[in-house]
Amino acid sequence: MKVLVVGANGQIGKQLVKFIQESDNLEARTMIRKQEQASFFEDLGAETALVDLEDDIDAIAKAADGVDAVVFTAGSGGHTGKDKTIMIDLDGAVKTIEAAKTAGVKRFIMISSFDTTRKAIQEANENFAPYVVAKHYADEWLKATDLDYTIIHPGFLTNDEGTGMINAAPEVKSDEVPREDIARAILASLENDKSIGKEFQVVKGTTTVKEAVDSIK
Amino acid sequence: MKVLVVGANGQIGKQLVKFIQESDNLEARTMIRKQEQASFFEDLGAETALVDLEDDIDAIAKAADGVDAVVFTAGSGGHTGKDKTIMIDLDGAVKTIEAAKTAGVKRFIMISSFDTTRKAIQEANENFAPYVVAKHYADEWLKATDLDYTIIHPGFLTNDEGTGMINAAPEVKSDEVPREDIARAILASLENDKSIGKEFQVVKGTTTVKEAVDSIK
Repeated sequence: MKVLVVGANGQIGKQLVKFIQESDNLEARTMIRKQEQASFFEDLGAETALVDLEDDIDAIAKAADGVDAVVFTAGSGGHTGKDKTIMIDLDGAVKTIEAAKTAGVKRFIMISSFDTTRKAIQEANENFAPYVVAKHYADEWLKATDLDYTIIHPGFLTNDEGTGMINAAPEVKSDEVPREDIARAILASLENDKSIGKEFQVVKGTTTVKEAVDSIK
Repeated sequence: MKVLVVGANGQIGKQLVKFIQESDNLEARTMIRKQEQASFFEDLGAETALVDLEDDIDAIAKAADGVDAVVFTAGSGGHTGKDKTIMIDLDGAVKTIEAAKTAGVKRFIMISSFDTTRKAIQEANENFAPYVVAKHYADEWLKATDLDYTIIHPGFLTNDEGTGMINAAPEVKSDEVPREDIARAILASLENDKSIGKEFQVVKGTTTVKEAVDSIK
């Protein structure tokens, strides 16, 4: 199973590509923006595709040609200019969804933010709200397609070493989660079709990632 | 027929409310953000509802209670911060659409920008693109509802005096158009159910507004 990782050069993306390359049944194609980012992934034995998320749908579809799944884990992170929030977190995500459809790829895993509900938008502070809005519309767009989607809503991301243990459910209490464990949750979702059509929040916890993902209602 | 004008205090909005109040069959309720904006509309005999577009859907739905049509002509205009682009031009518009549904109002007229296609997004310069993206998603959201929508795509807006003559069609050559004539085109759309389910570009021209709107394919 070949997986296009969009946003591969991000902190979750790099971990994810490592896990994919270490796995028995998966291999990664990484979508990266700059040629100088390629060697890291080539050293892991992964393919690379040089495409900017501000390019058009066809360019992204070309990168997705022949893969079995797309993971969207790109992000401006809420700390860049609000122009990037709308161009990357919203429009980049939707273009990637449309590109998957164009390329005939059914499986799509979206890394969202912790809470992208209408309620979360209204409660967000002025600085964070535009990011929540962007992620909200990207999630809504994905859910309106007939793709085999999984939407993962990570808690507060840290660079702590992963534990392989998480708490995952449609609604969990807000908490931290190591990026490494989010990468593991993506891997577990790719390997478990029970995650199709589901969306869930993930924070640090006491259940193995595999069991946690398998138990999502 | 009572019409809720969202963004009434804008330059198109004020003209529109005047035309509505002068008409035989329509009357306006104006959604405004500040109490000090009310007297202008009260002097025209229009109702006022004090609601901020950053409020929640229920607040907007309350303003739409009992009207027969909603016109969305609010806008950050593409010159404000990009945070307002996403909060007003996208999320404000979508909340207004959802509010119309909540209030049971079927008729919805959206004032969009000249070209909100995917192609226009890709061709827009870096400064303008976020605004086009915001308007694109608002238009897409509206088209996905079962509301009786009309989407008006104005050319380059000027404060020139209106002539009552326009050129309107799904695609016209880009040109200027006085805001006053866009207000007339909204009025003509409200008065002509043939505009339901249509979207069209409007620039200055040589056809009366009424005929132009009536002839949209």
